[in-house]
Amino acid sequence: MTLILALDFGGTKLAAALVNLGSRDWLGYERRLSPMDTDAHTDLEIMRSLIHSLLQGKKPAAIGVSFGGPVDATTGTVRLSHHVSGWENIPLKDLLETEFGISTSVDNDANVAALGEYRFGAGQGYDSLFYITVSTGVGGGWILNGQPWRGTGGMAGEIGHMVVDPAGPVCLCGKRGCVERLASGPYMAQDVRERLENEPQRGKRVRSLVGENLELVTGKVVSEAAAAGDDLAQEILYRGAWGLGVGIGNVANLVNPQLFVLGGSVTKAGNRWWEVVKQTARETALPEVDFAIAPAALGDDAPLWGAVALAQMSCL
Amino acid sequence: MTLILALDFGGTKLAAALVNLGSRDWLGYERRLSPMDTDAHTDLEIMRSLIHSLLQGKKPAAIGVSFGGPVDATTGTVRLSHHVSGWENIPLKDLLETEFGISTSVDNDANVAALGEYRFGAGQGYDSLFYITVSTGVGGGWILNGQPWRGTGGMAGEIGHMVVDPAGPVCLCGKRGCVERLASGPYMAQDVRERLENEPQRGKRVRSLVGENLELVTGKVVSEAAAAGDDLAQEILYRGAWGLGVGIGNVANLVNPQLFVLGGSVTKAGNRWWEVVKQTARETALPEVDFAIAPAALGDDAPLWGAVALAQMSCL
Repeated sequence: MTLILALDFGGTKLAAALVNLGSRDWLGYERRLSPMDTDAHTDLEIMRSLIHSLLQGKKPAAIGVSFGGPVDATTGTVRLSHHVSGWENIPLKDLLETEFGISTSVDNDANVAALGEYRFGAGQGYDSLFYITVSTGVGGGWILNGQPWRGTGGMAGEIGHMVVDPAGPVCLCGKRGCVERLASGPYMAQDVRERLENEPQRGKRVRSLVGENLELVTGKVVSEAAAAGDDLAQEILYRGAWGLGVGIGNVANLVNPQLFVLGGSVTKAGNRWWEVVKQTARETALPEVDFAIAPAALGDDAPLWGAVALAQMSCL
Repeated sequence: MTLILALDFGGTKLAAALVNLGSRDWLGYERRLSPMDTDAHTDLEIMRSLIHSLLQGKKPAAIGVSFGGPVDATTGTVRLSHHVSGWENIPLKDLLETEFGISTSVDNDANVAALGEYRFGAGQGYDSLFYITVSTGVGGGWILNGQPWRGTGGMAGEIGHMVVDPAGPVCLCGKRGCVERLASGPYMAQDVRERLENEPQRGKRVRSLVGENLELVTGKVVSEAAAAGDDLAQEILYRGAWGLGVGIGNVANLVNPQLFVLGGSVTKAGNRWWEVVKQTARETALPEVDFAIAPAALGDDAPLWGAVALAQMSCL
């Protein structure tokens, strides 16, 4: 019996799970929200307690870690977290290997999710895929020739900051009209709020959903209002779907993977959102470039299953 | 002594060369322009005569072929040529293997040039690169992990039809503002011609270079006029450089290769063109994404040296 320990350092939550190699059922599973204003030290303390309560003396063969931020996967060093302070240049692989005496692999959440979907989810049976998460941000991870492709500096997969509309709104990255600026939940919410302030006649459904408190508009609210027929919410939501579709079509032309797997909260925006993404991607790609687009299959446990796959790669 | 035979089916010319494995000097070299209105049959006949005059009874260990058009590299079947008729579904690998009894590998010119630059040119010592040709069209070829990456359907590398300006001019591919539409020689010439017709006060240098015969405006004329200070030629040329730079920056974010190698006639447009490409690419890529941009080193023989590298891969 070979045990694998999977860890997920998300931006707002921490999770750990134990599985038998080859099994698709967790032997044990622990999950905790990060405290408000948490830092790296606190999150590591919480994770330690989750691990100890899971293991209770058992010794896994390998540890796989999904981290919500840039990681040097070669050394297993976290570069930083955009959500939690104190993660700058933390040698997470070394820390865990020293503490538990178990071979550990660390990678960022998008690469890990790509690997998870490839091994256990929507990408099973495919040889190359691009996983895209569309949520608070937009990021991606590659599987090429059945292996993760991380890029020279571990930076591959950044579809979020591909410019698809140079005349579009300005993103925090300094450019205009990148995919993340158009398609991510918080940016869509921001655009809807601004439009509601400037166009008093529009967005009646959005207004009623938040009781006229525009602070409460989120990506989810935009999706719900669009589904209920709100024209302003639809305009913003489907502009985001268009931007993502252009990005996917461009990627298809460039790298020609078999499959795109889409996960993250925004992908729950409904059929019409998917149709706009798929149609735009098809129109953007050259006619002779084939690809499929599928929803992620692993849901909230994607980082953990990906971490299992990552650990497996290191011990097989 | 192991001999390699390299063949180059270009759109307008045919070339063949013989080399000793490991040497960087041709043992023999033959080159012929295709006749006007040539077809696949005629080009194959010409290539046969080049081969026979090169070999004169010698038997190479392998043949490598660069073909100027889409190829199924797995089977070595040409899909078509955009310049020469009659190439639809020609099993070029099988034809050559049957006729000469020598193991043969066939790939499209962009993939072959990428391999050539990687083995013998600007990409030596790098592990991942994207080769881009900017000429009559704009195309590209990948080396990832030291191996060609051709994509699922052999379609990877199509940076030419990445949309960088959705409000830009319409391309033959049906989309607006793709890289090829902005940056390729014939499209830049077309745009300059149209502007000259509509703006009688502009483009004095271009007009004098072609003796007022606008039919004679080519990509090369646009480059020369821009170098001589023509404002209209500069506007069109540097818009093309901008489009290519956005494309390169997007590719850097997506796939994070170490190096971009740029070849093709338009890359001879001068220092300012290179500066615009490099600066735009740097501004488009995220700050933490590193890459280098270098000119192709192999010049007109790039397809032949790439074909040598392709043949080497098959016999080593």
